[in-house]
Amino acid sequence: MSFSLETWASPKIAQLQQMLLSSFETEESILHQACKYPLQTGGKRIRPLFLLATMEALGEELSQDAYICATALELIHTYSLVHDDLPCMDDDDFRRGKPTVHKIYGDGNAVLVGDAILTKAFEILSQCTPTHLPALLACIGKAAGTVGMIGGQALDVGLEGKITDLEQLKQLHSRKTGALICAAIDLATILCSVSEEKQATLHQFGQKIGLAFQLADDILDAEEDAKADGPPSFVKFLGINATAQQAEHLLEESLTLLNSLENPEALRRLALFTVKRDH
Amino acid sequence: MSFSLETWASPKIAQLQQMLLSSFETEESILHQACKYPLQTGGKRIRPLFLLATMEALGEELSQDAYICATALELIHTYSLVHDDLPCMDDDDFRRGKPTVHKIYGDGNAVLVGDAILTKAFEILSQCTPTHLPALLACIGKAAGTVGMIGGQALDVGLEGKITDLEQLKQLHSRKTGALICAAIDLATILCSVSEEKQATLHQFGQKIGLAFQLADDILDAEEDAKADGPPSFVKFLGINATAQQAEHLLEESLTLLNSLENPEALRRLALFTVKRDH
Repeated sequence: MSFSLETWASPKIAQLQQMLLSSFETEESILHQACKYPLQTGGKRIRPLFLLATMEALGEELSQDAYICATALELIHTYSLVHDDLPCMDDDDFRRGKPTVHKIYGDGNAVLVGDAILTKAFEILSQCTPTHLPALLACIGKAAGTVGMIGGQALDVGLEGKITDLEQLKQLHSRKTGALICAAIDLATILCSVSEEKQATLHQFGQKIGLAFQLADDILDAEEDAKADGPPSFVKFLGINATAQQAEHLLEESLTLLNSLENPEALRRLALFTVKRDH
Repeated sequence: MSFSLETWASPKIAQLQQMLLSSFETEESILHQACKYPLQTGGKRIRPLFLLATMEALGEELSQDAYICATALELIHTYSLVHDDLPCMDDDDFRRGKPTVHKIYGDGNAVLVGDAILTKAFEILSQCTPTHLPALLACIGKAAGTVGMIGGQALDVGLEGKITDLEQLKQLHSRKTGALICAAIDLATILCSVSEEKQATLHQFGQKIGLAFQLADDILDAEEDAKADGPPSFVKFLGINATAQQAEHLLEESLTLLNSLENPEALRRLALFTVKRDH
């Protein structure tokens, strides 16, 4: 019987969705409704799935802690989109085909919604079993903070100067999107208490697949809409063919790193899906 | 020799200040500079001091954990001010006599700065000794989130409808400012592993002093600037005299709750200072 990524993922996404929404269901309020809105507009749930697939690859049962960490990662990704879409940031009116939070609730409330979702991400971590909590918290905090996602965001908006070469662009994306994807894998290795060597190998996998994900994104963007005045992208620096080649190369390298794992099928397929979205 | 609150507080504030800034000193970046800016513009550091004074009142040494939690609280308070001041929120150009973050770095970057400071608050908690970490994290997350500070903020901007009576106004302030002040006291009781009874008494103290703090704030605001079209305030609902009486009454009640504590002098004086700022 062949492995279906969809069959593997869908009960996990359902469980995650329930946990994402339950974070804001304790109280009847417009604020809670507003917080649930960006959690209900779809999304591939790539980060949570990477965490769960990595645990499975390591031969471990998917624990409640795994789902809590997966939920926290998706909450952090979601808040970053809510704030990114604000008029004072990227100024996007639509996200996943639906009006963005600030278009519905106003700019000030969208700031609050993002803040609330970010705060909730950390609050729910308190429900993890205490043993791993310090490491989990440190990992997520670092990935989401100024050396990770927010740092990448600052590079993206030009706070640290213009992006003029490929190295800077890699730096930007390894933080802006790579950090949370890498954190998904790192969190799994923390939860499974693996050896340092295995942790390092999987971290490398996370870095490579995170970059490949961004290259694939740039190719999709370039195919959809080839703006000469758009933001710096790998396609602009390298051309579409070399970008596609590099994504393919990173994918191969990352898959090789999974060879020694116990049960890597889902992780392998998720990596493939991440780079070749038509799969 | 008489007790001087200033002598008591100033080495603690210096230690705290060093910890606040060190959070953003690992890397040379404009983002880190921008994050340090609102942490360098003064402020009374009421929340950290309440935490430290409560620990002292309970007869405990001020541990590294106490300072970490105090730093986290002040980081959360600071991020909330950065976001509050944004044009899409309160639109304030000055805070503590200095230009607000968005006036210097732009609106989008001020959103990122707030996000980064909030994220850092949770990240540093990972350095606490693991025993108390789940309870500390849950306490701070709840106080900072939708049932606490952000919920109060949402009430303040009218997301849940107009404030038309005193009960709603109390609700607003018990969340917007009260929650973090109460958390300061609750965190101390967690760190000191006190009995549930003592915890409940001190929590009550926190609620009362948090409300008294807001009443005192409203009186100061009314004395400075009596706008008829300003936001709802206790002075508007009760008049200045009744507001002052109620603040005095809450202060007395809260001080009574400290009677059985081992070493309540600093906490007592801090409570007095909070309500009567001219002391």
